[in-house]
Amino acid sequence: MAKEMTSLTQDECWNKLRQQEFGRLAFHHNDEVHLVPINYAVDDRTRRIVFRTGEGSKLSAILRNGDVAFEVDDIGPDRAVSVVLRGRARELPHDEAVWCDQLRLRPWIASEKQHVIALEPTEVSGLSFRLHRPWRSILPEVVG
Amino acid sequence: MAKEMTSLTQDECWNKLRQQEFGRLAFHHNDEVHLVPINYAVDDRTRRIVFRTGEGSKLSAILRNGDVAFEVDDIGPDRAVSVVLRGRARELPHDEAVWCDQLRLRPWIASEKQHVIALEPTEVSGLSFRLHRPWRSILPEVVG
Repeated sequence: MAKEMTSLTQDECWNKLRQQEFGRLAFHHNDEVHLVPINYAVDDRTRRIVFRTGEGSKLSAILRNGDVAFEVDDIGPDRAVSVVLRGRARELPHDEAVWCDQLRLRPWIASEKQHVIALEPTEVSGLSFRLHRPWRSILPEVVG
Repeated sequence: MAKEMTSLTQDECWNKLRQQEFGRLAFHHNDEVHLVPINYAVDDRTRRIVFRTGEGSKLSAILRNGDVAFEVDDIGPDRAVSVVLRGRARELPHDEAVWCDQLRLRPWIASEKQHVIALEPTEVSGLSFRLHRPWRSILPEVVG
């Protein structure tokens, strides 16, 4: 029987990060914690996450305090996988940022997003867990 | 043509929150921001989010600083919807917690999770945005 919960290896975590293109970024904004969805790519040369952002409160908050957390997940009918990365975010200078044009990091939404942020991880962890949804057993199921 | 980005009404945000059962919680842990996936339910009597947790660093961090953010999303081929809720989390006393047994909030993973946390929102916002994935146009497509 599959285990209730297993930890992912570092390579499994990075494979999952490479498979996805949409994650959630948590950052400090003054004394509050904020959370936004982002489109991202993996920069495999240095195993870091990169994403684009425009001018705005997200950018200025991250530049003030680079401590961030980032999550991607993959929810199946019976198991879920979640990968969480903690680390520091910083804006890339132009010469590093242009390299990112080779990654699949064009903006999903058509708006100006000229700043490239790199998230350099201090900690990457992943869990795969089996899902129990006991309330589903009270619903009639189609059989046959 | 569908708009690039539209804001959801409060009712649309709560409908999306009701449809899902898996979200991500960002919270303070000492001076760091942490992010974890959680199974949750909507308590419609008071329009709040409730979830169970066991003893551990997540619980003690939230009890020390209740400022949290929470996100659910729904990514389709052409559009994505993301709902973000900010507010305060607190542990429910026993008489309030027992009510939550009526919600579909049994633990997904088979472990002891005896504490019920309520997230009372100060701010709920949602966005629906059209996705552009320009790198896909370089892939051959099946036609016909």
